[in-house]
Amino acid sequence: MSRARAIEVLQRALRRLPGVGPKGARRMAFHLLERDREGAREITAALTRALDGVVHCKRCNNFSEAELCEICASAKRNARQLCVVETPADLQTVEQAGVYDGLYFVLMGKLSPLDGVGPEDLHLHRLGEVCRDNAVEEMILATNQTTEGEATADYIGDLARALNLKITRLARGLPAGAELEYVDPGTLQRAFLDRREL
Amino acid sequence: MSRARAIEVLQRALRRLPGVGPKGARRMAFHLLERDREGAREITAALTRALDGVVHCKRCNNFSEAELCEICASAKRNARQLCVVETPADLQTVEQAGVYDGLYFVLMGKLSPLDGVGPEDLHLHRLGEVCRDNAVEEMILATNQTTEGEATADYIGDLARALNLKITRLARGLPAGAELEYVDPGTLQRAFLDRREL
Repeated sequence: MSRARAIEVLQRALRRLPGVGPKGARRMAFHLLERDREGAREITAALTRALDGVVHCKRCNNFSEAELCEICASAKRNARQLCVVETPADLQTVEQAGVYDGLYFVLMGKLSPLDGVGPEDLHLHRLGEVCRDNAVEEMILATNQTTEGEATADYIGDLARALNLKITRLARGLPAGAELEYVDPGTLQRAFLDRREL
Repeated sequence: MSRARAIEVLQRALRRLPGVGPKGARRMAFHLLERDREGAREITAALTRALDGVVHCKRCNNFSEAELCEICASAKRNARQLCVVETPADLQTVEQAGVYDGLYFVLMGKLSPLDGVGPEDLHLHRLGEVCRDNAVEEMILATNQTTEGEATADYIGDLARALNLKITRLARGLPAGAELEYVDPGTLQRAFLDRREL
């Protein structure tokens, strides 16, 4: 390792990024060194800062730089609603859409027996606490529309019934801008089943 | 900037990588923080080392940690051949193929009038020197088979004629494993023009 050339070490390191193979890593390494050393310094600084500063919010599990994340700590959020998502990326997507102002609970995963992920890995023992502490009235299950996401939602739904809450699941149907011609059968079936009266 | 959250700063920084958009940067940031902090540290260390240590070889322009790159400094390379490539990535590809043991000259670009890249940007004034210093007998033009790569090869070919060298261009034709049915007309035309006697 000590004799490996810096540029090869860099290429190998960049391959640890998800979705980056040998060619992508090479392109990145050469681009940074040849055209964007400023960018390389920016990445180094940002990584160092994030590694040092980012922990998990002790209430919702989201990434945070403080004990409580900004959302959990905010007085402006509607504490009567709790949206359960699989990952911080999902949370960020909902936040960026600006369609929800309640609290979150981030599972940091989904039930996946094949990968050895069971209920105990999803911090579910803390979900009840969070609901009681915040006087949550509605739990919105926003796990993915995949087999595992559905199973996770069902499991949490069953658990949460004991908490005496309103439990909802995000609507399924045609995405915005959908052209019927290109919609898959599963989506179409759901769109028919859950059709609404005008 | 000082109040931006570390994770957003990190996502913004990762977007400076070529081919990485907002979703890719988010995926990378979350992956590193959640699943691979070791990888993040490896990337930081590798970037720092490369930024500090990597310069250009003063003879062939390739990336190097010393004044002369390993290839230029090696006594094992055939100094009678000089392969002219556009980028260090091209050089690396040729090296990895293990089909050439001569020296290189890296243009760090190609003639591209539309982008304002002229002969003076390609270190061409040093190409003659390098040829004379190494007693080069053959210059192999290995620029890309693109309009700009071809124009660059033609231009350098004209220049190099004054050096009284053998000047060659990499063979063009069918790639290894090609199925005729799927070969484009330009490649096929070249394959017919340059056909060889058995």
